Amino acid sequence: MQSRYFTINDYPQGTPARELFELHEQELPTLGEGEVRIRNTWLSVDPYMRGRMSGVKTYIDPFELNAPLEGAAIGEVVESRDSAFPEGTKVRHMGGWRDIAQLPGAQLEPLPAFEVPDQAYLGVLGMPGMTAWTGLNRIAEMQDGDNVLVSGAAGAVGSLAVQLAKAKGGTVVGIAGSQDKLDWLEARGVKAVSYRGKDAAQLTEALREACPEGFDVYYENVGGTCLEAALNTLRVGARIAVCGMIARYNENTPSAGPGNLAMILIRRARMEGFIVFDHWAHYPQFLEEVGPQVEGGQIDYEETVEEGLERTPDAFLKLFEGANRGKMLVRL
Amino acid sequence: MQSRYFTINDYPQGTPARELFELHEQELPTLGEGEVRIRNTWLSVDPYMRGRMSGVKTYIDPFELNAPLEGAAIGEVVESRDSAFPEGTKVRHMGGWRDIAQLPGAQLEPLPAFEVPDQAYLGVLGMPGMTAWTGLNRIAEMQDGDNVLVSGAAGAVGSLAVQLAKAKGGTVVGIAGSQDKLDWLEARGVKAVSYRGKDAAQLTEALREACPEGFDVYYENVGGTCLEAALNTLRVGARIAVCGMIARYNENTPSAGPGNLAMILIRRARMEGFIVFDHWAHYPQFLEEVGPQVEGGQIDYEETVEEGLERTPDAFLKLFEGANRGKMLVRL
Repeated sequence: MQSRYFTINDYPQGTPARELFELHEQELPTLGEGEVRIRNTWLSVDPYMRGRMSGVKTYIDPFELNAPLEGAAIGEVVESRDSAFPEGTKVRHMGGWRDIAQLPGAQLEPLPAFEVPDQAYLGVLGMPGMTAWTGLNRIAEMQDGDNVLVSGAAGAVGSLAVQLAKAKGGTVVGIAGSQDKLDWLEARGVKAVSYRGKDAAQLTEALREACPEGFDVYYENVGGTCLEAALNTLRVGARIAVCGMIARYNENTPSAGPGNLAMILIRRARMEGFIVFDHWAHYPQFLEEVGPQVEGGQIDYEETVEEGLERTPDAFLKLFEGANRGKMLVRL
Repeated sequence: MQSRYFTINDYPQGTPARELFELHEQELPTLGEGEVRIRNTWLSVDPYMRGRMSGVKTYIDPFELNAPLEGAAIGEVVESRDSAFPEGTKVRHMGGWRDIAQLPGAQLEPLPAFEVPDQAYLGVLGMPGMTAWTGLNRIAEMQDGDNVLVSGAAGAVGSLAVQLAKAKGGTVVGIAGSQDKLDWLEARGVKAVSYRGKDAAQLTEALREACPEGFDVYYENVGGTCLEAALNTLRVGARIAVCGMIARYNENTPSAGPGNLAMILIRRARMEGFIVFDHWAHYPQFLEEVGPQVEGGQIDYEETVEEGLERTPDAFLKLFEGANRGKMLVRL
């Protein structure tokens, strides 16, 4: 059986060009004992993948050049030599960026049993959702009634973070760019603030207007100007969960950081970075809490879908243009 | 009775000039019921006082213009209308920057009973010592064997932080400026690194040489280049206790922050600001742990002493030139 897969031919400087990505085809080897062949139906593209294109080990190994890229995917077993995953089983795994994946059964997870579309397990009930929940609850230790600020608030992670925060009371403010993102936030009772055309002082002003008492929690997805403005609006004892800093992922050379880091001291604030994979043991707890809310429609989630394997690099690159609302996905 | 005291006549921009400080004299009013008159013997000057000269409320009210400045001091009761503090009692209080203080008894603390010089209660067993202990233990949650980095390592706070860290094992590295500070650190088994003449990349290199495995704890007194270099050398799960950022206290306009804040994410690090006054309920625990070690000579502490009330502003200004080793004091 043939498998088509994407590779990168270099570690890019700055924003990756579309030409970086090459589509290849290979004849898959005969299935070994314990191996499973999966026809992928949904592929995930995520901002963290940019880090794996740098050739430097951070918290995860870099992608190998000219080898199939990796990423979360959902598919159906089409051939199996692992009795735990008979043909027809729906599974989640890391063999994304390709149409047919061939993996050891030990690397597959059967999909949980909630009545939700399969692709929800790549988004609101997958890694991005788990990331939102972990940052709010385990890192920022959000308390009932806390005022919460979220940057990248209409993205895959941010859009769940604002809704989880909203359910626990307090003022919730989301920073986003485009008007349709702001509208989506406002429709969910989130005070929406645009970062577009604002420097840090102007963004600070807008945040103060949205929440004059200041924030107990800042959920950080963006960095740059958003972080600088957020630091100005912290309450004493505030907690910042640093999930991502997408504003900087494509920079060749580091830009200067915020000039007001001393606010950490003045407000006795805590800022903590985390990687969701370190907290994966709590995934069942997350599913138990959030799964029924998604199933019951209390939590709204958006998807931006590109069609066809060929569009996977385009879907990935759109993440850095802020073109997605909610989870960015590729449907095969 | 006459009291001589210092005031400031303006909120300074940038590094305060000597002329900012004015020496005044007043006839003290008759002692009221519950009040106590103290002849000060030692005055403390501390970096945090710069924050009170900004006219902006941070975690503590700004100094009032043309009113006696405040600060920690030690003295002896010379007249009392509070039976808890009879004449001759040695006390600590916040009526510094003056020779004779007149305060309600409720604002005085009797000196603890360790066999140490009185002024130790302004330094190693006072607020700076308590600050070092709190940052290491309660904020950075230092564990036995942790590798610890301290900036401002020969200052009042840093010099105790390195010794407390050293006693718990692991590699301890101190950043300081002058050769005599570096020598003092090395003599105490601390690896000393000078920040002088180094940019962030060079300081990073020097820190990596001193401790190739990286740091579990960074005790931050300085900010600026020290913070940027420290961020490059954190181990996964590192904790940064932000006690101060003296490098920036005299700046009019904020300088850019470190360009590598994303290390907080990559290393899943935690950075937390604290104010020692929030933790004062633990002062008895600190005294119980550290007092006997100071009394027994296991902990070494340095003092830089200016003589006479008139020199108080000079002592204060020297803090920002890095001219002190250990606690900066004024003896009356």
